[in-house]
Parts: sequence; structure tokens; C-alpha cells
Amino acid sequence: MDVHVLRLGHRPSRDKRLSTHVVLAARAFGASGATYTGDRDPGLEESIGRVVSEWGGPFTFEFSERWRSVISGWRGRVVHLTMYGLPVQEVIPEIRGEGSDLLVVVGGAKVPGEIFGMVDWNVGVTSQPHSEVSALAVFLHELREGKEPGISFQGARKRVVPQARGKRVEAGV
Amino acid sequence: MDVHVLRLGHRPSRDKRLSTHVVLAARAFGASGATYTGDRDPGLEESIGRVVSEWGGPFTFEFSERWRSVISGWRGRVVHLTMYGLPVQEVIPEIRGEGSDLLVVVGGAKVPGEIFGMVDWNVGVTSQPHSEVSALAVFLHELREGKEPGISFQGARKRVVPQARGKRVEAGV
Repeated sequence: MDVHVLRLGHRPSRDKRLSTHVVLAARAFGASGATYTGDRDPGLEESIGRVVSEWGGPFTFEFSERWRSVISGWRGRVVHLTMYGLPVQEVIPEIRGEGSDLLVVVGGAKVPGEIFGMVDWNVGVTSQPHSEVSALAVFLHELREGKEPGISFQGARKRVVPQARGKRVEAGV
Repeated sequence: MDVHVLRLGHRPSRDKRLSTHVVLAARAFGASGATYTGDRDPGLEESIGRVVSEWGGPFTFEFSERWRSVISGWRGRVVHLTMYGLPVQEVIPEIRGEGSDLLVVVGGAKVPGEIFGMVDWNVGVTSQPHSEVSALAVFLHELREGKEPGISFQGARKRVVPQARGKRVEAGV
């Protein structure tokens, strides 16, 4: 199952770091790429490019002017993460079972109401306000049943060797 | 098991929204409170207070000038979330098994190296760069074995009724 993330409504002045974290979470939890809409932000693209070049990929990251066509043109099923949706615990077996490529839509400042009707599932990661970063990570973590250590990153220049104390980083393999 | 989050090194000018998301994730995933260090930020405190008043608690949120004494004065065990630590999948059974009250430390811009030696566990949520927001949420999600729907929030003025489509919010119960 290939997973792609669509981040809506990026505003460079306000969202730079949050969007960076959303996209890095997408990559770390196994998505193969992300698209963002809103205002184009070369600084955001450079930040993500730098991480992919250091820590490996493949991970694509691109801008689109039209979120509607990203959704309608998607080759598989579509999930929208929203605190108003059905609990992830309830719907994740069905989403996993489908096995088709998945587009995961995460909001920015204002999510157009019509999105709720365009997607296959509206999914809530808790029904409480928190963050698109945490919602995305927990959703992807559930999607692959918590098996992030099995994700491989190609072409990394460095990788962490997990330690009980301190930091150990090796040259990529 | 009571869980409290310590957010290090808040800088109001840069971290306002990220710290808000960290603390909201703490609350949504079952921590009973959070403390932050760095520079005091009344705007951050108001944002969190507003959410607790609308969506319920109890959830305490306070500032401390001294992270060392928050850690050394903690009544239970201490976890530090870092991409350099041992995989959450590996250590979470032991942490759950301890059953003692847990302080979860999440970094800001610069994490003092001595923290690695002061805590009971350094835990990595993936060994990849992503976000303190996602690391915290996935850690807490694992800690309670994904059972967020069982968390109760008292005194909420409103609550979401999960829907397949659209938004439904009721007055709190």
C-alpha cells in the first residue's frame, strides 16, 4: 500500500514549522511523498529536501495549486483526518483491509467543508483538539500496526544507532 | 498511572504554535498536565486555558524556570523522547509494567546533553527526524495501548459526536 499525504492551506508566514513537522512525520511514518497547497514556500521545500538528502528516501514533496484535483485525481482511496470523524480505532481495520493506495488529507487553517463529502473516510484521532502533526503520525502508526522500525530509507547519508544513553550516528549504508 | 509532560526551551517568538500543539497532544492523549520551560508566554497559557475550559479537564499547565528541579523533584519515573533513544516498541512494555507516575520530557530547540543521563529511559519514536508533537502523541498512544476513546474529560462545555460525514458538536455532559 502506497501512502501519500496532502497538506492543505499552507501559509509561509505562520505555518512554516508546523508544515515542516507534518511532512517530516509523513516521511518518518512511512508515506512515500507529500503534496501541499496554499502558498508556495521555497524555504519549506528546501527544509524537506535537506532532510531527505541526509536521512534518505525515496520521498517526493511537491506543491499544487489545486487541492480538488489532487483528491479527484488520486488513484486509490482517500482519508481525511479531522477531530469530527469516526474514531481511528473503529475504522482502521477496514482501511488496512482495502489495501489500495491511500491519500491522507490533513488540514491547515481552514478546511473547506466540501472535503468531508469527497473522501472515503473522515477519521478522528481522538475527538479532541490537538494537532495535524500528531493526528497524522498516530494514524500512520496505526495503519502499519506500529511497525516503523521496518521502514527502510534509501540513500541516507547518516542513520541513528539507537542507544539507552547518548547519541550515536553512523554514516548511511 | 499519572502522566505529566515537560516541554523544554519554549521561545515565544518561534515556538508558540508548536508548543501549543505539544501541550494539546499531551492533554488529548491522556496526560493530566504539562510544565514548560524557556521563556514565559502568557499567550500560550491563555490558548491552553481556553481549550481546557471548552473541552474539559482536569489538565494543569504551568511554567517553570528550572527544568532540572522539575525532573529531579518528580515523584515517579522519567522518560525523555529523542530520536537517538531506544525504539518505543522495544521499551514500552517495561515502562507500562512499572506502573509508576511518569514524567515525559520533550525537547525544544536545544536539549541539554545531561538530560540523557538524568532520566530512566531515552526513547525514540522512530529514529528519524520528525516532531516533538508526533513523538509525544505516538508515545502516549502506545503507553495506553491506543485506548484514547476511554479518556474522560470533566467539565467540558462541548464534545464531538463522531460522524462519518460532517461535524456534530454537543453541549458537554
